[in-house]
Amino acid sequence: MSEWNLPDLIDHTVLRPDATKIDVLRLCQEAKEHRFSVIFVPPCYVDEAVAAVAGTAIRVGIPIGFPLGGHTTKTKVAEAIEAVSRGALVLDMVINVSRLKSGDRDYVRRDIAEVVQATPDVEHKVILETCYLTQGEKRIACQLVVEAGADYVKTSTGFGAAGATVEDVKLMKETVAGLVKVKASGGIRDWKTTLAMLEAGADRIGTSARILKEIRENLSNRTYVKNMGRTLYPHRDAAGVVGGAGLWRHHNRLDQIQPHVEDHRNG
Amino acid sequence: MSEWNLPDLIDHTVLRPDATKIDVLRLCQEAKEHRFSVIFVPPCYVDEAVAAVAGTAIRVGIPIGFPLGGHTTKTKVAEAIEAVSRGALVLDMVINVSRLKSGDRDYVRRDIAEVVQATPDVEHKVILETCYLTQGEKRIACQLVVEAGADYVKTSTGFGAAGATVEDVKLMKETVAGLVKVKASGGIRDWKTTLAMLEAGADRIGTSARILKEIRENLSNRTYVKNMGRTLYPHRDAAGVVGGAGLWRHHNRLDQIQPHVEDHRNG
Repeated sequence: MSEWNLPDLIDHTVLRPDATKIDVLRLCQEAKEHRFSVIFVPPCYVDEAVAAVAGTAIRVGIPIGFPLGGHTTKTKVAEAIEAVSRGALVLDMVINVSRLKSGDRDYVRRDIAEVVQATPDVEHKVILETCYLTQGEKRIACQLVVEAGADYVKTSTGFGAAGATVEDVKLMKETVAGLVKVKASGGIRDWKTTLAMLEAGADRIGTSARILKEIRENLSNRTYVKNMGRTLYPHRDAAGVVGGAGLWRHHNRLDQIQPHVEDHRNG
Repeated sequence: MSEWNLPDLIDHTVLRPDATKIDVLRLCQEAKEHRFSVIFVPPCYVDEAVAAVAGTAIRVGIPIGFPLGGHTTKTKVAEAIEAVSRGALVLDMVINVSRLKSGDRDYVRRDIAEVVQATPDVEHKVILETCYLTQGEKRIACQLVVEAGADYVKTSTGFGAAGATVEDVKLMKETVAGLVKVKASGGIRDWKTTLAMLEAGADRIGTSARILKEIRENLSNRTYVKNMGRTLYPHRDAAGVVGGAGLWRHHNRLDQIQPHVEDHRNG
C-alpha cells in the first residue's frame, strides 16, 4: 500500500520560453492555492517568484544550465550562486550530456560537484536528460550524481526528444539505491502518468499547469475518487474543511485503477 | 542578380546536447575543409574549438543564454565574458522572449546592451526566436536589438517550435533597415532553403551538418550546377584549381532554379 501527499511531491513548473510574467505570477498563485511545495520559474523571474511566495512554505526552484547542459561549469556555478543569493532554495541543474556521452566522467562529476559546493545550503537535483542516454550512460550518470553530492537524479528537462518513462525511473531508483532521490519530469501531464511515476519509485514529480485542471476539477467539485480499495481524496484540515492543500492518498496498485468519481458536494 | 560567396556566409553549427566531443572536433575539421567563416559549438567546448581552428581565419562562436533566453542578465554577461576570454569572437545571444512578450522593453534592451558592452570587441547576434512572437513583437525586438548596439538580428535557435521562415527574414530585413544584419537559422538543412533565405535578404545562414552532404557531393565530383542563367560553382583559386573553399555564385532568382548537375571530373 502506498500513501502519498501529492501536493508535497509536485514541483509546479513553468519554463516555456514564451511564458509571460503573468503566467509566472499565476503559477505562484496556483502553488499557494494548492500548497505545492516547490515552484520552478525561469531564472530571470527569481525575484518575482520569491516575493510572490514570501511567508509561505513554498520554495522557489531555478533551473541551472537549462535545458542543454552544455554551459561551462563556471557559468553554471555563477548562475547557481546568483539564484541562491536572490532566494532560490532548489536548483535543478542539467548534467553535461555531451561530456557524459564522450566518456569524460571526471568532467561530469566535477561539473556537478562545483555547483553543489558553491551553494551548499540548497537542494540540488541533476537532470540526466535520459532520452539521449544509453542504459549504461544512465547508470554511470546516477553514480556520478551520487559521488558529486547532489540530492536527486531527475529524468528530463521537458525540452529533449522525450520525457520521463516508468522504465527510466525504475532504473534510476535501482541504481542510486537510496543514496539520492529520484524526480520524474517531462511529459507528465495527467494523474495517470503521475501515479505511474510514483509507483515506479519517483520521490518527486515535475509537472506544468495542465495537471492542475484535474486537481481543480476534483477540488472544485469536492469529490474524491475511489475504486477497488484505491482512494485519492482531498485533505480535510483540523476543522474538517476540504481544502486546497489536498492530502491525496493512493492505496492500491496503479494497474487496478478504474477511476470512479463520486460527487460529495452535498455530502 | 545576386552573387554570394556561400562558405563565407555559413555559421557551421553543432549545438545538439547529445553531440559528443568527436562531433565537435569533426565540425571544426569540416569548417577548415570548406573554409566556413564561423563555427558554433556548445560553450563547454570553446577551448577545444579555439585550439582546433587556430591559425585559420575561422572564428569560434558561442551561444549565450541558449536556447531559452530566460537566464538573468548577469548570467548572460558572465557567460559572454568567459567565452570571449577563452577565444570566442562571435556571440549569438537569445533575447529574453518572456520579457519581450510581457511588454518590458527596457529589460530586453538592457539585457542585450549589457552583453554587448561587456564584450565590445566581438560580433553580437540576437536571436528573436520568431516562432513565439507576433508580427508586432518581431518588429519591436528588431528595434531593441538596433538600440542595444548588437550587429545582427537572428531568427531562431533551432530548438523552438519552428525555425526560420522567408517571411520573417523579409520582415526583419525591412525593419532593421540596414542598421544591423540578418541571420537566418533553424531548420535550414538544404541548398534550396539556404538560397531562399539569401534571396529574402539574409546576410548569414546558420546550419548544421546536413547541408554539408550537398556541398561535399558537388566538391567531390568537381561539378558545377548551371541552369537558366543560374550558376553555383566551386571556387578556382589563382592557379585555377577547384578548391574546397568554394566561391559559389548564384545568378538568378530562386524560383527559376531547376538544378542540372554537370560532371567536370574530366573537364
